[in-house]
Amino acid sequence: MTDDWSRDNCAVGNTLSVIGERWTLLVLRETFLGVRRFEQLQRHTGIARNILSDRLNTLVEHGILRRELYQERPQRYEYRLTKRGLDLYPVLLSIMDWGARHLEGQAMTLTHKSCGATVMPHLACPECGEQVEARDMHAVRTDAALRESA
Amino acid sequence: MTDDWSRDNCAVGNTLSVIGERWTLLVLRETFLGVRRFEQLQRHTGIARNILSDRLNTLVEHGILRRELYQERPQRYEYRLTKRGLDLYPVLLSIMDWGARHLEGQAMTLTHKSCGATVMPHLACPECGEQVEARDMHAVRTDAALRESA
Repeated sequence: MTDDWSRDNCAVGNTLSVIGERWTLLVLRETFLGVRRFEQLQRHTGIARNILSDRLNTLVEHGILRRELYQERPQRYEYRLTKRGLDLYPVLLSIMDWGARHLEGQAMTLTHKSCGATVMPHLACPECGEQVEARDMHAVRTDAALRESA
Repeated sequence: MTDDWSRDNCAVGNTLSVIGERWTLLVLRETFLGVRRFEQLQRHTGIARNILSDRLNTLVEHGILRRELYQERPQRYEYRLTKRGLDLYPVLLSIMDWGARHLEGQAMTLTHKSCGATVMPHLACPECGEQVEARDMHAVRTDAALRESA
């Protein structure tokens, strides 16, 4: 029986190897708030400059942020979320929501642009629209049959 | 101007200080799949025993898992998600979903028990029910006014 699934081909593990680091997620939080420039990112997060620079490079390498020139002389770049980066929104939001509820950390105030409601989005079933929590869902490993027979 | 908000009282930062570690999230993934015992957790994740033991203790200390006796002689404990732990479901699910879409990691097959649909839950607005993504929401730091004037 092989357990490679867990470590080498698991969506959770793979994602964590890209974004599973405290500073990286704090940088992403700022980019979702519209902060794009190195100096502002540094000020808002308090990350040491060399670490911030390293984390930004990692995020660019993985296609989560892209570097864009905003000033010619001297050359200055800003960092913007790509589509792939924007897709991390549910990750950041769910981390923030849990922290605000269970650790009394401070969350954002969020407004749904289209309906105007001030809300915290929740997980819902795309089929029936109901809100879902852990116990409402049944999870099966995609390779369950393989594992059972091993 | 203080930037303490970012580091000391931010829901993202606080949450990461509890669960923002690769092994911790892999352990949580297993507990959401119903794995409760040390030996199984060790086998499914491939984490070194001392590290696994350490991460489990941390999760118990933070009230995310609770230890429960399942055998008297010798005494054996299993680890179960508390309500606080179950509330981490959206975090795990959104990490898994992103990885499956962008890194080709393997995800679970999920079924919504009440309607029977095989789905990946998405973020929705609790008010109007619409699916929401990053650009559908407007975010304001709770202390925005304070920061602007600082």
